[in-house]
Amino acid sequence: MLTYNFEKNSKTPLYEQLYSFIREDILAGQLPPHSKLPSKRALAQHLTLSVATVQNAYAQLIAEGYLYTKEKQGHFVSSLETNAPREKGRENSFGEKGEELLPKKEEYFFDLKSNSLSEENFPFSAWAKIMREVISEQGKGLLQPLQYNGVPELRCAISQYLLHFRGMLASPEQIIIGAGSEYLYNLMIQLLGKEVSYGFENPGYEKLHRIFRMNRVAHFPLGMDADGLSCRELRCSPVQAVHISPAHHYPTGIVMPISRRQELLRWAAEQKGRYIIEDDYDSEFRFSGRPIPTLFSIDEQQRVIYLNTFSKSIAPSIRISYMVLPWELLQRFRQEMSFYSCTVPSFEQYTLAKFIRGGGFERHINRMKKTYRQKRDALIEALQASAFAERVCIHEEKAGLHFLLSISTELADAEIARRAAAVGVRLSFLSEYLYGESNSSYQHQLVVNYSGIDLSRLPEAMRRLEEVFLAEKG
Amino acid sequence: MLTYNFEKNSKTPLYEQLYSFIREDILAGQLPPHSKLPSKRALAQHLTLSVATVQNAYAQLIAEGYLYTKEKQGHFVSSLETNAPREKGRENSFGEKGEELLPKKEEYFFDLKSNSLSEENFPFSAWAKIMREVISEQGKGLLQPLQYNGVPELRCAISQYLLHFRGMLASPEQIIIGAGSEYLYNLMIQLLGKEVSYGFENPGYEKLHRIFRMNRVAHFPLGMDADGLSCRELRCSPVQAVHISPAHHYPTGIVMPISRRQELLRWAAEQKGRYIIEDDYDSEFRFSGRPIPTLFSIDEQQRVIYLNTFSKSIAPSIRISYMVLPWELLQRFRQEMSFYSCTVPSFEQYTLAKFIRGGGFERHINRMKKTYRQKRDALIEALQASAFAERVCIHEEKAGLHFLLSISTELADAEIARRAAAVGVRLSFLSEYLYGESNSSYQHQLVVNYSGIDLSRLPEAMRRLEEVFLAEKG
Repeated sequence: MLTYNFEKNSKTPLYEQLYSFIREDILAGQLPPHSKLPSKRALAQHLTLSVATVQNAYAQLIAEGYLYTKEKQGHFVSSLETNAPREKGRENSFGEKGEELLPKKEEYFFDLKSNSLSEENFPFSAWAKIMREVISEQGKGLLQPLQYNGVPELRCAISQYLLHFRGMLASPEQIIIGAGSEYLYNLMIQLLGKEVSYGFENPGYEKLHRIFRMNRVAHFPLGMDADGLSCRELRCSPVQAVHISPAHHYPTGIVMPISRRQELLRWAAEQKGRYIIEDDYDSEFRFSGRPIPTLFSIDEQQRVIYLNTFSKSIAPSIRISYMVLPWELLQRFRQEMSFYSCTVPSFEQYTLAKFIRGGGFERHINRMKKTYRQKRDALIEALQASAFAERVCIHEEKAGLHFLLSISTELADAEIARRAAAVGVRLSFLSEYLYGESNSSYQHQLVVNYSGIDLSRLPEAMRRLEEVFLAEKG
Repeated sequence: MLTYNFEKNSKTPLYEQLYSFIREDILAGQLPPHSKLPSKRALAQHLTLSVATVQNAYAQLIAEGYLYTKEKQGHFVSSLETNAPREKGRENSFGEKGEELLPKKEEYFFDLKSNSLSEENFPFSAWAKIMREVISEQGKGLLQPLQYNGVPELRCAISQYLLHFRGMLASPEQIIIGAGSEYLYNLMIQLLGKEVSYGFENPGYEKLHRIFRMNRVAHFPLGMDADGLSCRELRCSPVQAVHISPAHHYPTGIVMPISRRQELLRWAAEQKGRYIIEDDYDSEFRFSGRPIPTLFSIDEQQRVIYLNTFSKSIAPSIRISYMVLPWELLQRFRQEMSFYSCTVPSFEQYTLAKFIRGGGFERHINRMKKTYRQKRDALIEALQASAFAERVCIHEEKAGLHFLLSISTELADAEIARRAAAVGVRLSFLSEYLYGESNSSYQHQLVVNYSGIDLSRLPEAMRRLEEVFLAEKG
């Protein structure tokens, strides 16, 4: 029977590994067209995997046309030319089979670019227990139509959370739940208007300008200085609504000081129709210093839309984000946009509400803060003890899941990244996050994402990085 | 303790009834500010309700500022002037407290306007069983990031469903899952472009022109004739992308014949950049006649986007819809829009995939078809046996959850609706669904939605309708 070597500690899920193995065998002709695959149960037993893992791999292979099923007979290898949905001479219009693949995650030994969370740290059993409770408690109630702004329980839980842990007064009425921040950005653009000019931080969150572009609205990158978004650049631009992440800017790591926050609020207050979109996505993971109040809290003019997400603090597959609207915009939203149904199923909303109310969310955040702090401390210690310690300098390490590392080097950023990749270490540089022309002040600044690193590999990773930097010297 | 009379058979959920009772007591001063409410458990026991019901009512009251909680002390009535989130002098900017209320569902004895599904017919226990299985089977896998287009299992299940029950060949690769049709319309507008002129059926689906308006795209209502959307009007318009629901148009009930379908496809093929958005939302509930192939299936030019939803066939709170893109548009979608994360949680997707694959969906549809057919038949029979039988005529009753009833009358539609409402019967007229100026050919046509009616009330409802029509005569 099919036999493969799985990498148990890999970040690639087992089903994806299995999927890749079988796919390669099909493409290489090891598994000829119309040959029958083992049953899911048999293969699972043989490879000591769960049946669900095999099922997921098979499903992915079916989705991409590598396998087909015959009712009650099992799974068979497709003849890649005659696979049904491609029959109609459409292969050429779409090109390679491979394009349907999951986003290619190349296998690095040590990845300092990916800012994925460590799933293994999420208290899934507690979460699953709440899911089961919600099924029993709500029963058929789960089928009832939703309010446009979300389930009251969840909006209340978020309101109380914001009050206790963010010192922010937001009525549950002002909160609007949506399926992810990207969705809410789209709603915001509809709410503020297509004729409005939007501004965004540069360097910054890459998806944002794509969303502006897809909405065909005018959008302008605005530079940063040591305090965050440059008010000078903002004032020289035609921007009316500006997106910022003052709690912890990605990728520079800057925490916007109160003076700059006030300056931005003054800018907004000066003219009718100016708004600030405050993206607080990372604020849970502050390690030291007093938290700075949100712009939303200190705004007296109803010009700030506050936005946050649980995709970052729980898991990316939890598509729950929310925005808090000032009252005037809320009224406009209700009049013009409350016809949109809420996009998050009530089941997820009740589950999250219980998780927050029962203290599970707070405990999880505290646990993650501890884990991330340990990772950060170990990484910084290793960098400072490394052979290249005197050539690097660490910045903006007090919050959120990354810091900056400036390097003194002759090499171009891309060349360093290439050399590190060659020894299995994935790096990323600030310059990659720039929109438009490059800016030399962003050269040689590593963006170090440590949330997903495996500490047991740290010594070896440092050894490999030393190799990269010593080779440069020599 | 608080004692109220609940209407057990009401369509208003118990928690909403309880919420209204308590709210009225607060507004009337029966429950004075800062008085303590009974504990959820005690009130539930006292009123023989579930704790979840009381909890939902309390949560709604908190959300709207009528109640507040003190930690470990319970629920208290707010002093409506000093309630925390309103303190900052913002009450006036928002007006009445009451505005946060759930969409007001007036209490009718018999409702022929609401097209809500009968929740009680959904096999919730089978669904809940699958939910529990998915939690166990997928475990932490539920936390993994989603592919932009949805979980492969669900796309495969939909692909097979479309093949078997709709005779439509759509590869799982072409399917894109999203949180509701409204969300997918927004994606489509981004995909096809803001510079495109959109057309929609008039009368038709009311939300559609709101979505076009919120997206600030040019949009044109197009008239209908006996075969559906008028190709003559379409050809006289600048429309490039037209939305239609050929399987069963709401509210006219017209099923578009094959000749008109082909005519529309010819229109699309004539010029580059023309597209048809085929909304098949109601196609599961066809009662007689051979199903007509979808435009997507007979389109040779890759000009049709197919759209369908499970909100209609399962429950409105299931926010799962999907679109099937022709290959060329799919390629554009992948290049420009696959950065958008999928908006439906993987949990719901796995659950629905299992429900479809295990045959539960098909059984549910068959059961519902039977139920709806019974309702339709009983209603038609009662109408034909009524005292006003000779003044009415039934049309377009072969598909979907509504039919048309033309009435010979001197009264204006609004007046008939008002008189019926006065005796507890809710009616709606075709003329209400018109966009823009009224059209006399749509007068005196009742849109009879029967999916949610209570057959035990039918004889009394007919008696009351007779009263309305006899009064007119007299």
